[in-house]
Amino acid sequence: MAKKLTPRNKDFSEWYNQLVKEADLAEHSPVKGCMVIKPYGYALWEQMQKTLDTMFKETGHVNAYFPLFIPKSFLSKEAQHVEGFAKECAVVTHYRLKNDPNGKGVVVDPEAKLEEELIVRPTSETIIWSTYKNWVQSYRDLPLLINQWANVVRWEMRTRVFLRTAEFLWQEGHTAHATKEEAIEETLKMLEVYFTFAEKYMALPVIKGIKTENERFAGAVETYCIEALMQDGKALQAGTSHFLGQNFPKAFDVKFLTKENKWEYAWATSWGVSTRLIGALIMAHSDDEGLVLPPQLAPYQVVIIPIHKTEEEYQKVTAQCDVIAQQLKKANIRFKIDARKEFTPGWKYAEYELKGVPLRIAVGPRDVDNHTVEIARRDTKTKQSISADNLVQSVEKLLSEIQENIYQKALSFRKSMTTRVDTFKEFEEVLNEKGGFIEAHWDGTIETELKIKELTKATIRCIPINNALEEGKCVYSGKPSKQRVLFAINY
Amino acid sequence: MAKKLTPRNKDFSEWYNQLVKEADLAEHSPVKGCMVIKPYGYALWEQMQKTLDTMFKETGHVNAYFPLFIPKSFLSKEAQHVEGFAKECAVVTHYRLKNDPNGKGVVVDPEAKLEEELIVRPTSETIIWSTYKNWVQSYRDLPLLINQWANVVRWEMRTRVFLRTAEFLWQEGHTAHATKEEAIEETLKMLEVYFTFAEKYMALPVIKGIKTENERFAGAVETYCIEALMQDGKALQAGTSHFLGQNFPKAFDVKFLTKENKWEYAWATSWGVSTRLIGALIMAHSDDEGLVLPPQLAPYQVVIIPIHKTEEEYQKVTAQCDVIAQQLKKANIRFKIDARKEFTPGWKYAEYELKGVPLRIAVGPRDVDNHTVEIARRDTKTKQSISADNLVQSVEKLLSEIQENIYQKALSFRKSMTTRVDTFKEFEEVLNEKGGFIEAHWDGTIETELKIKELTKATIRCIPINNALEEGKCVYSGKPSKQRVLFAINY
Repeated sequence: MAKKLTPRNKDFSEWYNQLVKEADLAEHSPVKGCMVIKPYGYALWEQMQKTLDTMFKETGHVNAYFPLFIPKSFLSKEAQHVEGFAKECAVVTHYRLKNDPNGKGVVVDPEAKLEEELIVRPTSETIIWSTYKNWVQSYRDLPLLINQWANVVRWEMRTRVFLRTAEFLWQEGHTAHATKEEAIEETLKMLEVYFTFAEKYMALPVIKGIKTENERFAGAVETYCIEALMQDGKALQAGTSHFLGQNFPKAFDVKFLTKENKWEYAWATSWGVSTRLIGALIMAHSDDEGLVLPPQLAPYQVVIIPIHKTEEEYQKVTAQCDVIAQQLKKANIRFKIDARKEFTPGWKYAEYELKGVPLRIAVGPRDVDNHTVEIARRDTKTKQSISADNLVQSVEKLLSEIQENIYQKALSFRKSMTTRVDTFKEFEEVLNEKGGFIEAHWDGTIETELKIKELTKATIRCIPINNALEEGKCVYSGKPSKQRVLFAINY
Repeated sequence: MAKKLTPRNKDFSEWYNQLVKEADLAEHSPVKGCMVIKPYGYALWEQMQKTLDTMFKETGHVNAYFPLFIPKSFLSKEAQHVEGFAKECAVVTHYRLKNDPNGKGVVVDPEAKLEEELIVRPTSETIIWSTYKNWVQSYRDLPLLINQWANVVRWEMRTRVFLRTAEFLWQEGHTAHATKEEAIEETLKMLEVYFTFAEKYMALPVIKGIKTENERFAGAVETYCIEALMQDGKALQAGTSHFLGQNFPKAFDVKFLTKENKWEYAWATSWGVSTRLIGALIMAHSDDEGLVLPPQLAPYQVVIIPIHKTEEEYQKVTAQCDVIAQQLKKANIRFKIDARKEFTPGWKYAEYELKGVPLRIAVGPRDVDNHTVEIARRDTKTKQSISADNLVQSVEKLLSEIQENIYQKALSFRKSMTTRVDTFKEFEEVLNEKGGFIEAHWDGTIETELKIKELTKATIRCIPINNALEEGKCVYSGKPSKQRVLFAINY
């Protein structure tokens, strides 16, 4: 029987760690800071990848692949970028090992020192824009709409599986455009793609917004983001889309001849989401019994479990399970039959509850006689006996109800956890006692933003897009403000 | 107009380099030894990945992801493995950069030296088996049938895009079994998957065989391979499947409790193919006008080109192109319409010939009137006017004819380039004047194998599986031999 998880309200962080381990999603690796993504966790990532990749292609993007390594000097070419990324990174200095003269394994060969060190990419703007220089000569070469699925490395001391690890998997889009307007349009288009992916597939309500200067991507003119709320009241940045202006094109001298025969620098965007989304999915929906996965992304949407005592019953119910499986397969529903005899139905129920499979179909001998099945929802933990006729239709209806229910539940939670405050005392009280998003006025200065962070650990998650303008006074400094911004403690 | 390629018979190597560049497949990157895979080249890789991934899943495998880095000491745990892999590799020694005290960019921070160096994975047996140790306790945990899609790095001095680069993309399967027999069965099953992929999808005839001890994977008990012949008469290893015995399980202490309650070491296999296959595809089928892609893997199977002079004609033919596109889309045929006005039909014909699109459909005003299209095959360069009725059926039939024709052509070539020789003089003559595969007797010793390599550059590509036994004398030493083996100069 699966181990009981620490309840969320007792220790959310411990609950998360246990769940990631017990549900076979991932684990820490022998390499400090790196994770192993186990098959069930990777299957979830594959569903995410497939969905996003289709959305990227439908919006005109193509995939390509750029080198893992970045020459050290490239990082210094964009002044802000190097400050943000060059510090904590993996540095390759040598290209050969040799047998230890003392006979103990292998040692670095001091003669194989690289002339220039290579950095394992923390993000690929520099290597990609150094390549785009050769691809862009004329307005006819634009736009370049390219995405890359890759691993990246950012040295992290305090790691957390999926949320913060030295190596992680992600996609990074890097586009080049002839005009500023087109680049901004692209930035917003990809923000919208991420928004749709979060809301419709992850069942995760998110707020679209703009980052403050202090929280902006190193090298961006403007960073757009989607922000989600986890069940412990902390915020999680779920995706970012950057308008990079001409910063990287200038740093790497990417110019093109316009229709009017003038040389101009290209305009740039970049946008990305990572395996961090798996962490978001877990913390937004799951409960004390285990994962709750949205049907749109669940590796298995349905698990079928035969119930039997005698061998005769086993034959009878598994035959019926196979019939059901055929129907689900035809309808492109992702399913699994677990007919293993060495595990009891009770064990299996707990196992698939832990793994968050949205629907469980149990088939016993009486079900076969009555032409019914027992169907149980993971999200509400309700079960019912339904007719085996039109089973596919029933399953599809239930899956779509579950998807909607999970979303609505997360949305209600976020609403209940979003508080308007007008004094700093209130601000601190809400943070300490309730958490969640806080809508408050801010005077627009970095000083105030940093001071609030220092005092409360809360940061400005974003300035929501299409924010209602409203005269007010900064919750900390009392200076005039024109709109509320979204504060929270974040992952 | 596309640049004319150097003909293959003039300079095959130059032809290859030009084709890779002109067809927009890939290019050398600013990072020495690494390549950039451009969108068209990557689209080809995506087709390969999709096909292989489906085949792996149909044979019961799942995907997972293991760390990019391997602690240096892991490599030394398997004695042969370290000899084969630990030498030319990228070594991470530091985890931080800092601002240059002299104000020139960034430098490695000497205080951020790793206690133990990390190696960028050249292959993942060591990191994976160190992880499997925790996953395998009982026979119930076996088999583990896991695959990983990843980038790997092997430091190479003389690189060649797709064929030999420092970083490349691949898949690596790593399985754990309870018995030797089952592990050998798995090794052969995956060899068969690679064989089917090469023959049915790549249209590439390959020979299944066993490597000699000298050519074996470092750490394997037996290495199986598929070997292909390129148009210049050189061989190319297209995939390998290794029976690893208990070497890695012993090195990483992976033991399990058998049904009989005894502790035993697990049995291991690993198998992989890489972006090298793109190089094989190019060199096996393409011609002096450009790529020839097998329809099963071509990113676009059909290109549709409207032919028009006046705006009225443009409207008329593009409307018809859209009708055709709808039909192809419904039939899941991958296609592209190129209706750009700034390029002439002649330019487009040359462009898609260069890019190896299997079928070209041209639609002119008269075609619309006559309800016909002009359809041209890339492989035979023949064209015909066909009825626009049942177009999908015609296209499907032609695509399957092209697939078969490309395969048969490569097969005839290989047959004509496979020579039986019985004296060393003949051996050298065939190698110098004709190239290709040479079937010759060998005395089974490493000494002879290395001597022949030293004298002729030819190596034993494999001992073909199910080889006919035949008494004979070693082509070099004259000592007795029981079977012919396959020699060639190889990539």
